[in-house]
Amino acid sequence: MTEPSSDIRREHVKQLIDHLRVRPGTEVRLPHDFDPRFKPDNLSKEQAPDLLAEGVGLLAEYQDRLYAQDTYSVLVVLQAMDAAGKDGTIKHVMSGVNPQGVNVHSFKSPSTEELDHEFLWRCAQKVPAKGMIGIFNRSYYEEVLVVRVHPKFLSAQHLPPSAVKEPQIWRRRFREINDWERYLTDNGTKIIKIFLNVSRDEQARRFLARIDDPAKNWKFSPADMTERGFWDDYQRVYSEMLSHTSTDHAPWYVVPADRKWFARLATVGIISDVLMDLNPQYPTVAPEVKAKLGEMKKQLEAELPHESGK
Amino acid sequence: MTEPSSDIRREHVKQLIDHLRVRPGTEVRLPHDFDPRFKPDNLSKEQAPDLLAEGVGLLAEYQDRLYAQDTYSVLVVLQAMDAAGKDGTIKHVMSGVNPQGVNVHSFKSPSTEELDHEFLWRCAQKVPAKGMIGIFNRSYYEEVLVVRVHPKFLSAQHLPPSAVKEPQIWRRRFREINDWERYLTDNGTKIIKIFLNVSRDEQARRFLARIDDPAKNWKFSPADMTERGFWDDYQRVYSEMLSHTSTDHAPWYVVPADRKWFARLATVGIISDVLMDLNPQYPTVAPEVKAKLGEMKKQLEAELPHESGK
Repeated sequence: MTEPSSDIRREHVKQLIDHLRVRPGTEVRLPHDFDPRFKPDNLSKEQAPDLLAEGVGLLAEYQDRLYAQDTYSVLVVLQAMDAAGKDGTIKHVMSGVNPQGVNVHSFKSPSTEELDHEFLWRCAQKVPAKGMIGIFNRSYYEEVLVVRVHPKFLSAQHLPPSAVKEPQIWRRRFREINDWERYLTDNGTKIIKIFLNVSRDEQARRFLARIDDPAKNWKFSPADMTERGFWDDYQRVYSEMLSHTSTDHAPWYVVPADRKWFARLATVGIISDVLMDLNPQYPTVAPEVKAKLGEMKKQLEAELPHESGK
Repeated sequence: MTEPSSDIRREHVKQLIDHLRVRPGTEVRLPHDFDPRFKPDNLSKEQAPDLLAEGVGLLAEYQDRLYAQDTYSVLVVLQAMDAAGKDGTIKHVMSGVNPQGVNVHSFKSPSTEELDHEFLWRCAQKVPAKGMIGIFNRSYYEEVLVVRVHPKFLSAQHLPPSAVKEPQIWRRRFREINDWERYLTDNGTKIIKIFLNVSRDEQARRFLARIDDPAKNWKFSPADMTERGFWDDYQRVYSEMLSHTSTDHAPWYVVPADRKWFARLATVGIISDVLMDLNPQYPTVAPEVKAKLGEMKKQLEAELPHESGK
């Protein structure tokens, strides 16, 4: 069997990614519009390890150039229901990339100090620096998801009465997020948003696996069952989020997540595609520095006289 | 050829690491006391890739347990002269470990705000959280290195007159660092300090390589040549640092760095040895949660009736 050339493969990846991207302005309805079990017909689990390794290698190479160029950053936002595979995706997609160029931040329950600031505040402090790939494991999108499903979290934010009128508050948050993401994009941050789309049944199977295997018990919390009870509410607020915050500058990708191997492949494909389009370059040296190099070379060679015969 | 058992290999690694550790209270004199070209007689470059991959695999496994246990953290402090291989060591030792459990922080020239705080302030904010491996690429040790070699950096710190008396200031900083590291250790942070010990000649060769290869020019700055001019001063202040801040709770390791492959192997050996001694365990589940698991299992199975025959 011959390997397709990398150009043809790139074309395949682009088609696949295009299929997963939410068109700006589309009204999304989960679970109908996106199949959590989707995979391309010509792709099988047996091919996954080699393709994943290849993708991670690409990521590592482009990350090195991104870091050296020190002009752009990449922010990957990961959102999903429990057990959809956020942690595993990060582990399998990013292990192999130089951690010096990657920052992963998991957003947990906000602190009292964080609740005393506007809703983007704590995330704004963690956006990746130039040259870095930043991963948000959960993000400011929780502000239109869990906060929307559980009104008590909104109450805890001490908002002025004018800011909490329903349904304007969610429309306004969508707009504020879009504006903020455009600002980040304008200033050099490429934003990639991935929703790992797991089905309700697959979540049940994964919860059961965590219950059945004592070594996995610690990954499971009774609170996960409580949240599962709000499944339909989450589908609704995720649908609204996808409908209102997928933009040209910061599109959402709905990654089918019932097959872990495919979710990982799709994720590495999406991130590496953005990096390849960005195509960061190693910096060139300023002419005035270049001019000094010859002189410094002589000086260094003079300090290594015993190697002058080399 | 048969592989030595992992116990015997562990013993070899322990002996090697012991050889690189600075005994607390020893007076160190560089470059005499540590050979930058040292390697064990029975170790060759050909063995390095396999051994490194094995070490990184161990690191990845223990990092996963460290993260799950969420009780201890590991702080790796890397110090060295330019071109000693800090960046390359981080890249080769840590690529392969899950970035979700690793934070690398490179300390650059301090900001005006940072200079308006005491000298540990900016580093204290970056110490690894529980469950994390933190890497400091340069660190608070610059406060007794570059700041000592260049008095202008000390002047920029706006210290009260009582705090800048020579030579007490350096003795006092050593003590303050030791005290702070003991406090971190007491509260769950394992501290590993690695000095990548490169020779003056090898630095010249690496600078020359960066000059000769246009693709590497950007890694070289005329400022690096200026700092090289202070080589002997740096050897002296590094010697004092090693003499005064290698403690039982936070020892210094002087890693021979003229051979990159050996520096990486030694580093992965040191970090994984600390993790293996720490031996973090996956958390067990509280009895009251365990009691609920059976009930939740039934509930989940009832939601998957079509799979009841499995």
